[in-house]
Amino acid sequence: MPFTYFRTVHFADTDAAGVVFFANYLAIVHEAYEEALAAAGVNLATFFADHGVVVPIAKSEADYRRPLACGDRLRVVVQPTLLSEHSYELHCELFRLGPPEKSAARIRTEHVCIASATRARTPLPPALAAWVRGG
Amino acid sequence: MPFTYFRTVHFADTDAAGVVFFANYLAIVHEAYEEALAAAGVNLATFFADHGVVVPIAKSEADYRRPLACGDRLRVVVQPTLLSEHSYELHCELFRLGPPEKSAARIRTEHVCIASATRARTPLPPALAAWVRGG
Amino acid sequence: MPFTYFRTVHFADTDAAGVVFFANYLAIVHEAYEEALAAAGVNLATFFADHGVVVPIAKSEADYRRPLACGDRLRVVVQPTLLSEHSYELHCELFRLGPPEKSAARIRTEHVCIASATRARTPLPPALAAWVRGG
Amino acid sequence: MPFTYFRTVHFADTDAAGVVFFANYLAIVHEAYEEALAAAGVNLATFFADHGVVVPIAKSEADYRRPLACGDRLRVVVQPTLLSEHSYELHCELFRLGPPEKSAARIRTEHVCIASATRARTPLPPALAAWVRGG
Repeated sequence: MPFTYFRTVHFADTDAAGVVFFANYLAIVHEAYEEALAAAGVNLATFFADHGVVVPIAKSEADYRRPLACGDRLRVVVQPTLLSEHSYELHCELFRLGPPEKSAARIRTEHVCIASATRARTPLPPALAAWVRGG
Repeated sequence: MPFTYFRTVHFADTDAAGVVFFANYLAIVHEAYEEALAAAGVNLATFFADHGVVVPIAKSEADYRRPLACGDRLRVVVQPTLLSEHSYELHCELFRLGPPEKSAARIRTEHVCIASATRARTPLPPALAAWVRGG
Repeated sequence: MPFTYFRTVHFADTDAAGVVFFANYLAIVHEAYEEALAAAGVNLATFFADHGVVVPIAKSEADYRRPLACGDRLRVVVQPTLLSEHSYELHCELFRLGPPEKSAARIRTEHVCIASATRARTPLPPALAAWVRGG
Repeated sequence: MPFTYFRTVHFADTDAAGVVFFANYLAIVHEAYEEALAAAGVNLATFFADHGVVVPIAKSEADYRRPLACGDRLRVVVQPTLLSEHSYELHCELFRLGPPEKSAARIRTEHVCIASATRARTPLPPALAAWVRGG
């Protein structure tokens, strides 16, 4: 089931072109991902250290469809999919609330679980796998 | 009356020391300020251009009291005070929600209204002055 | 001819995982792009307003290959290619200086020139087209 | 002896007002501080972990004097002063290169050395104290 996150565009997200800087779309999507994990009981401050893993992003793809201005209200939808026992992807979409609501960007990120100590690929901790599967 | 804003600490706010980067406390406080203005009916995307003014921050002072980690829940309180017909200050405090709740930072910013065209000091537009006075 | 930009990783680029936040790889590549334009005589503060155009990024793709820590020295290579009379792409690669030097990320961005007033696609201004072709 | 750092203003530093976002002046000053430490032989990626200390910023004060636009060339001067055996301050000034060169901001930060394990105040490691004294 996709996770939904609401967010307002802040001044700090924008650049001198008057709209959200392209890299910040990715940061906004990451916030939604963090909120989805927190809602699934994954405590970001301790989970990775507790399990001796990190789950860096290996790839990102973004399709920027619409500029976003300071004060715009966003709805961000995050849908995880398992790719293997040690990796998953997130399909995210940002909508600018309306009326009418408009799709502002589609972003895909790919996440690979590795052991902190060896940096070798390692299976997802159960709580993380459960979130991805349930997603 | 002070304005209250709730915010979760995101990964993008933190640095390699594991906690919120000092400059980002100021960005978080600015979000609270934007939300306070929006709640008072000031549309950030159009207000300044419509009135031919900008209100840059002339000074900031921050007292960082406590580190903040990813996932921490914050309460930010913003209290504006008029300094002159063309300037005001904000007294802001960030609290890390508990229990027990703890003060994490106190930040003061000073804002000066200037005409976009001439960059000369100019009186605050009425809606902005009303927000400051009512604050 | 590709443009080369040197950059040190700063604390503000990193996150609590101790390495550069994935979205900031895109910001670093954008710096290299800005430097390449400046070196070609395109003044970023005035060029777009002077020509009545904006050139937003329509797509980005990033392949993150290696974590980057605070203090790491980077070499960023930017190679533009014309896609049509109103669009171009940049192929960028970030290298972490060694010895041995290692590829840390490959990033592709796609840029579309539109008229500021109408937001319709419009041919690249000559100075920008010249930079892309010469790139 | 003060340390001097040169920096160009990037798009990512700016906001929708067209100039550098106020919090980013602090991030720019922090870059200069990092470069000063690196020049003094302090390796940022390992120094603090190696010595079991962190040196968070306890206070900052900024006097923003002039807006900075994308492409502006900056000269940042950093001058450290010892405050006690476990703390120091930095007096920083940002200049926008000219002609004529203009002061764009003055920023003061206060740094306190604490043990990572206990978070109690602890004397500065010798290499750091040497940098502050020599500064």
